[in-house]
Amino acid sequence: MGSEMEEKPVIKVVALCGSLRKASTNRGIIRAAMKMCTESEIQGMEMEELDLSKLPMLNVDLEVNGTYPPLVEEFRRKIREADAVFFATPDYNYSVTPILKNALDWASRPPNAWADKPAAVASVQASSRSGQYHLRQIGVFLDIHFINKPEFFVNSVLPPKKFDVNGDLIDEDLRQRLLEMLLALKAFTLRLIKGKSQ
Amino acid sequence: MGSEMEEKPVIKVVALCGSLRKASTNRGIIRAAMKMCTESEIQGMEMEELDLSKLPMLNVDLEVNGTYPPLVEEFRRKIREADAVFFATPDYNYSVTPILKNALDWASRPPNAWADKPAAVASVQASSRSGQYHLRQIGVFLDIHFINKPEFFVNSVLPPKKFDVNGDLIDEDLRQRLLEMLLALKAFTLRLIKGKSQ
Amino acid sequence: MGSEMEEKPVIKVVALCGSLRKASTNRGIIRAAMKMCTESEIQGMEMEELDLSKLPMLNVDLEVNGTYPPLVEEFRRKIREADAVFFATPDYNYSVTPILKNALDWASRPPNAWADKPAAVASVQASSRSGQYHLRQIGVFLDIHFINKPEFFVNSVLPPKKFDVNGDLIDEDLRQRLLEMLLALKAFTLRLIKGKSQ
Amino acid sequence: MGSEMEEKPVIKVVALCGSLRKASTNRGIIRAAMKMCTESEIQGMEMEELDLSKLPMLNVDLEVNGTYPPLVEEFRRKIREADAVFFATPDYNYSVTPILKNALDWASRPPNAWADKPAAVASVQASSRSGQYHLRQIGVFLDIHFINKPEFFVNSVLPPKKFDVNGDLIDEDLRQRLLEMLLALKAFTLRLIKGKSQ
Repeated sequence: MGSEMEEKPVIKVVALCGSLRKASTNRGIIRAAMKMCTESEIQGMEMEELDLSKLPMLNVDLEVNGTYPPLVEEFRRKIREADAVFFATPDYNYSVTPILKNALDWASRPPNAWADKPAAVASVQASSRSGQYHLRQIGVFLDIHFINKPEFFVNSVLPPKKFDVNGDLIDEDLRQRLLEMLLALKAFTLRLIKGKSQ
Repeated sequence: MGSEMEEKPVIKVVALCGSLRKASTNRGIIRAAMKMCTESEIQGMEMEELDLSKLPMLNVDLEVNGTYPPLVEEFRRKIREADAVFFATPDYNYSVTPILKNALDWASRPPNAWADKPAAVASVQASSRSGQYHLRQIGVFLDIHFINKPEFFVNSVLPPKKFDVNGDLIDEDLRQRLLEMLLALKAFTLRLIKGKSQ
Repeated sequence: MGSEMEEKPVIKVVALCGSLRKASTNRGIIRAAMKMCTESEIQGMEMEELDLSKLPMLNVDLEVNGTYPPLVEEFRRKIREADAVFFATPDYNYSVTPILKNALDWASRPPNAWADKPAAVASVQASSRSGQYHLRQIGVFLDIHFINKPEFFVNSVLPPKKFDVNGDLIDEDLRQRLLEMLLALKAFTLRLIKGKSQ
Repeated sequence: MGSEMEEKPVIKVVALCGSLRKASTNRGIIRAAMKMCTESEIQGMEMEELDLSKLPMLNVDLEVNGTYPPLVEEFRRKIREADAVFFATPDYNYSVTPILKNALDWASRPPNAWADKPAAVASVQASSRSGQYHLRQIGVFLDIHFINKPEFFVNSVLPPKKFDVNGDLIDEDLRQRLLEMLLALKAFTLRLIKGKSQ
């Protein structure tokens, strides 16, 4: 295991936010998660948020000779090089948001960049949970291994206030729940890496 | 019923295509459907395809004082004025396409333009059927009344060839299936209109 | 419309409970609904609960020469003769309960007894909502027309106490929500009946 | 890894069939799978089919002092002791069958016997694929790790004939597809076991 740790000292996680809003609370979740990684609350894991706002709307006519637009290629490379994926996204109308679906679809174009990635998903939203289940079903085709537990839903309407006006997470209980989930993602990622490397 | 017919002589259907591809076979389905309406194979129904390609990616920061960007307002008005909706869309990765989801979400912003609309959906695709079921579930929240039967899935991979290189429908059996579905949508739309008007 | 009313004076609703528990709160919902009908809070609608506990587990080997076991035939007849269906059911593990699925499947055997029935569903449960969405998807194949709104979920864990030890509904707000849903089911049922009869 | 292999020489898989039919083709899939294990086509894996037909319909009133009916306890023990689960089941009306759902629910009662089990699912059926996706969603709550690939659907209606009158698998291509899936289940099971044991 020692040599394993040397080869794979840090898990690289990419984070995707399903909202474009400036003060998105789901992006607030990602900021809180990144801070846990940089401040060593979670050791051996680093997280980078990917910008989904510049990707063109998916249109296979944009694929020329098997290549994709430059920003798409760059995005696909980031997914491919990641060890795990962290989604933070609201439900829109009981399903995934268009900005997130667009990113999922671009990185799925051959060769599928999502293949065999462990993943976790957090959602801040009012009520429904369907969006996460649609995302998980999409993951079957994309070959993403979502952790089952803990599931992470936050009802931002119910008290106490969990985010400030900028969308920053300010509730300690919620921060603990997020920490637990990220540790579960880390553990599952290591398990899949170690189980394969033998 | 006579007076009813005078007040509501023609059912107005808007068509939304889930693909941006130029030679999209799903758009070919819409062209074939529009032709059935204009050539009076289906009487009392007219269909207009809405352009989804110009809508900005949904971002509630674009909403100012309860108004939406001009192209979005125009799109919302078309939905609101329609008697019924016809979707023709592929599955992307077991779910709805981002271009279609974006349109669904924009017209759902308050006041929800989809409320109480009858609808039908056709899909040309390789295998999965999940996208239609995700769309139907989205419809629960949007208050869309999808017809249950006939369901319409076309596997474009299996012979015989059903579309030409431009995406135009060239298979007579498939054209008949499409006709049946549109007649079912027309009947259900009239049923909901008449049942309410009393 | 007068003659219509004479022909169809009362809507007959059958109620199916997805739990076998004696003190099931979902059955409590059905008892409260039946009381609203008999005490004329809802006029022109009568409701009968069907016993699902005696149906054998579905096995097509039990079908002989196109006939079904006597209790199944009786159950199927009740569904066929109903104008609408009211489901009250918990989620079990994010999906429909086996007792309810068994009843759904028996009445779906040819000729499908559910065809063209309007329906509504209420759920008392701890958290998930997936069971209702699975039920609605089943309804696509069975040709059931579920009302979209209002959706009815009750979290029995959160205060205030909504049911007594026998599973009887004791919360007035919840009773009002149930009343609204039943009135929506009644209105949609009449709309589908009237829209068709013309 | 050597000592690991001595402690865990053989993967124990339990197989659950979603149909009660005597000549069920899904049970035929299980028989073919068991034969692959006993005849060493798949080494290091043994498979036992569990009888679901004797389990009572789920009713939590049957739970007394935290214990379950004897046949249920026996079933739960078999699940608990298994290393992996293999489901072979038709869709009934776009969802899971009642006999399978009943088994899933019984073994989910506390303590959840399914927790952390890898699994795979095969389906012989006419058309829809929804049942498998409902099963996978149930698996999120039950903490089952389904393999993503290969998915296994068999359309028993299309030629060539794949099963004889007894439901036995007689098509070599299909047998190869089944073999591949079982090898994928074996590999994923070993990966999860090894990744954890370190």
